Amino acid sequence: MTLVWLNGVLRPAAAAGVGVADRGLLLGDGVFETLCWRAGTVVRLDAHLARLSVGAALLGLPLPPMADLAAALADTATANGLKDGSLRLTVTAGPGTRGLPRPAALVPTVLVTAVPAGPSLGAARVVVAGVTRRNEHSPLSRVKCLSYLDQILARNEAAAQGADDALLLNTAGQVACATAATLFAVVDGALVTPPLGAGALPGTRRAAVLAALGGEERALLPDDVARATELFLTSSLMVRPVVAVDGRLVGDGRPGAMAAAALGLT
Amino acid sequence: MTLVWLNGVLRPAAAAGVGVADRGLLLGDGVFETLCWRAGTVVRLDAHLARLSVGAALLGLPLPPMADLAAALADTATANGLKDGSLRLTVTAGPGTRGLPRPAALVPTVLVTAVPAGPSLGAARVVVAGVTRRNEHSPLSRVKCLSYLDQILARNEAAAQGADDALLLNTAGQVACATAATLFAVVDGALVTPPLGAGALPGTRRAAVLAALGGEERALLPDDVARATELFLTSSLMVRPVVAVDGRLVGDGRPGAMAAAALGLT
Repeated sequence: MTLVWLNGVLRPAAAAGVGVADRGLLLGDGVFETLCWRAGTVVRLDAHLARLSVGAALLGLPLPPMADLAAALADTATANGLKDGSLRLTVTAGPGTRGLPRPAALVPTVLVTAVPAGPSLGAARVVVAGVTRRNEHSPLSRVKCLSYLDQILARNEAAAQGADDALLLNTAGQVACATAATLFAVVDGALVTPPLGAGALPGTRRAAVLAALGGEERALLPDDVARATELFLTSSLMVRPVVAVDGRLVGDGRPGAMAAAALGLT
Repeated sequence: MTLVWLNGVLRPAAAAGVGVADRGLLLGDGVFETLCWRAGTVVRLDAHLARLSVGAALLGLPLPPMADLAAALADTATANGLKDGSLRLTVTAGPGTRGLPRPAALVPTVLVTAVPAGPSLGAARVVVAGVTRRNEHSPLSRVKCLSYLDQILARNEAAAQGADDALLLNTAGQVACATAATLFAVVDGALVTPPLGAGALPGTRRAAVLAALGGEERALLPDDVARATELFLTSSLMVRPVVAVDGRLVGDGRPGAMAAAALGLT
């Protein structure tokens, strides 16, 4: 039986619910983290909690003490007998009245769920999303928040074309990211990734890759992606080579050395 | 006791919950309508259901038959003894597994809630939001969807400055809308409102005002707003004069004739 941690209590997932006045449900008012659980611990826990704190501060959400959140993550993993897998920590603004203004005293909803690791994903074929653009003018582009619909539209577009994922352009026409991952590219022999100002999320593995492999944060245009000799995606849960963009092969169409190096970091 | 309509059943609000795997809760994956209930009927019901259908189609969400949704709205109002008030109809993508891809067979969550009308809001003092921009490059700017966080950030900014609402600029620097309302302005004697292409939501009352008062859809710059002789906001629930922007009075600082005319339409 799958258990979830909801507001301090571990409960059967099938019996756990969030009230119909929850602002996370009604307005996407909240933040979350997806975390990798491996060998009995959360990978890069501090980086995840730091990013969560930044997002909660932007939204004006009070958070429980970090130690309590860390314990909730570990308890949820342990209660589910999780070996390798992932955890998701969601914090919403909690129940509210009708409309946008928040209640004077927020009582956030805190939810932790766990799932075992799935099969390895293999290399990805991606498209450049045409349906929407990422809004680099919003500070939400730098926060992992519940308002995720632009990415869902792009992912739906990819699926409709038989692709695995989509790259999102920002409103200036630069490449920002994939739908739930950071994009790295090897262009003219250099490892580059879009800067946060272009709409990239400050990924925890993104930071680790930049620190270890010495990549550069630089604006990437679709033409740069088209001539890249290697592309790969990173998230807390994976490093995934990209072997085709809009049906054209990347390099020789096989996973590259930089992706392998990134994967080898952890 | 307040009752809500959830997936076909009227239940006490306090006992109604949405599962923790709901994509509306986890990813803002859904659409909604806020509807005015007056004299035993939903105002502009067909326009609301038409807009909901367009949004659901964009998101790829199957909807129950329109007649069923209309009945759910009326049943919820009646069960709560609602006289004048508002209804909210929310449709999410329903439960999913971890991650962005939707399950093969979607089972949407359908929720209807009702609240009595509050006191009349009076005239509004607004600010021009600096914290974020509305993304007119996303089709979601023309859909009433659950990913509402940019508007919440702007509303929080307004509240922090003691204002009632905020005007959002789009990424090109044009005025798009207020946080949950359409903006109308009288500029050089003409009634104007931002076009949908500038990031305006196709409001049901917006359409009614344009049809009855002959307003023009035209890009509005902050300078136009600054020199407007009248400003007002419209939504399904209200027509609200704006008497100050960033602390400067609009016209003589009193509600204007066009707002009164718009209010007199319904």
